[in-house]
Amino acid sequence: MIGVFDSGVGGLSVLASLRRALPRADLLYYADTARLPFGSRSPALIRRFAREAGEKFRLFGVDFLQVACGTVSAVGLDEIAAAAHCPVSGVILPVVERIASDGKRRVLILSTEATANSRAYETALAEKIPGVATLSLGCPLFVSLVECGFCAKNDPALLSLVGRTLLPGQTFFPDSVLLGCTHFRRLSPLIAQLFPGVPLYDCGEAAASALTASAEGQAERGEGKLRVLVSDGPERFRRTAERVAGLFGVTVEEVPQDE
Amino acid sequence: MIGVFDSGVGGLSVLASLRRALPRADLLYYADTARLPFGSRSPALIRRFAREAGEKFRLFGVDFLQVACGTVSAVGLDEIAAAAHCPVSGVILPVVERIASDGKRRVLILSTEATANSRAYETALAEKIPGVATLSLGCPLFVSLVECGFCAKNDPALLSLVGRTLLPGQTFFPDSVLLGCTHFRRLSPLIAQLFPGVPLYDCGEAAASALTASAEGQAERGEGKLRVLVSDGPERFRRTAERVAGLFGVTVEEVPQDE
Repeated sequence: MIGVFDSGVGGLSVLASLRRALPRADLLYYADTARLPFGSRSPALIRRFAREAGEKFRLFGVDFLQVACGTVSAVGLDEIAAAAHCPVSGVILPVVERIASDGKRRVLILSTEATANSRAYETALAEKIPGVATLSLGCPLFVSLVECGFCAKNDPALLSLVGRTLLPGQTFFPDSVLLGCTHFRRLSPLIAQLFPGVPLYDCGEAAASALTASAEGQAERGEGKLRVLVSDGPERFRRTAERVAGLFGVTVEEVPQDE
Repeated sequence: MIGVFDSGVGGLSVLASLRRALPRADLLYYADTARLPFGSRSPALIRRFAREAGEKFRLFGVDFLQVACGTVSAVGLDEIAAAAHCPVSGVILPVVERIASDGKRRVLILSTEATANSRAYETALAEKIPGVATLSLGCPLFVSLVECGFCAKNDPALLSLVGRTLLPGQTFFPDSVLLGCTHFRRLSPLIAQLFPGVPLYDCGEAAASALTASAEGQAERGEGKLRVLVSDGPERFRRTAERVAGLFGVTVEEVPQDE
């Protein structure tokens, strides 16, 4: 069974990619909705959340864990891996490898504040692309916009808010934009309008592709089961997942929080 | 010592009112920034957060606790009071009494989703104003907008986002708008533009006035000390408090989270 972790609905795009590519794989999605957004918390708290999420996945009994949360991938990957007791992948390396193999040299990195502060993407990019130029922007409101369903692509007010945050990125003249938080894919039609002709690289999509390539053999063995669990508000999550991610007809279970 | 509780910076306006009115009172502000926003969580989780906040105030040793969080006032006041072991006031009754004494009859209530679902303001209004007409709107993005510093009054994009949420309120033709979450005061110049000539009633301001009136005798006995504590990210909170609430020169301490 493959586990997928995010704070909220952002990782559902990773889940959807895995379901399409590995239709027989058994999948378990767990979102820590009781404590989102992660990206505005301190590193110490994110690492604690990561450890506790890892413990949940160990109890769920997954064989492999895909962290679909950019913030935990950047700040708490060691902690979630140590607690999960299974192989764990984050979303940093796959997208960085894709950008490197496409020969890009000026990368604008969009992420949560905590991910930006960690410099995890910059470090990985500098290792894979000698001489790469990077600019990293923390985008504090983006996760809340997506979680509240504000992501319509023809919304001038949204475009204005998003554009204001990304203004320093436009004068950087990037040859590639890295979406370093899985929630941001929902805003990609808006972001694309601000960078015409510049390709967007979604960390979640790259991670799902990498996982699909490595897991294809095992995919034949499952029954195509899907479980979706959240730490708070299953009904609210179900509605948001329908509206934002097009995930229909799925039962959402609640995992009690630790006291 | 008077304690003031909120999830984030929203309650700082209550704190500022208390400091002005009771300059010698000793004040302790505690914000549970590790778990904001409260208003999108389930009632059970909010009640748990309320209980844990109450336990913190008991350890801090406050003599009176002003809950400056609309969501906890609506959903978890009994829990925070039971754990705090001191007299506790919320923000619901003072603002409702002010609206009643002004003879208002059509009240538009703006709050978080959890507060709207609780119907706490409607219930209190119906008790004080027989035959009152109310419309309650949950405003999911507003707390995140304020916490991220998006509250400039001349921002057309913000006005558009806020206006969209409040559209059903405009066709209700209210004679009064109740700001049922202390964060919303930061958006009041925007909200006022959407309801020209209609008075806004801020739950935090009404609560601070009521507390000031009842505590005036004790105010002489303190030394005017102020402590500000948060459960995560003291430096981030300090910056937001400066920018959003004009609170300068205050040390923000971190209270460790329970394991």
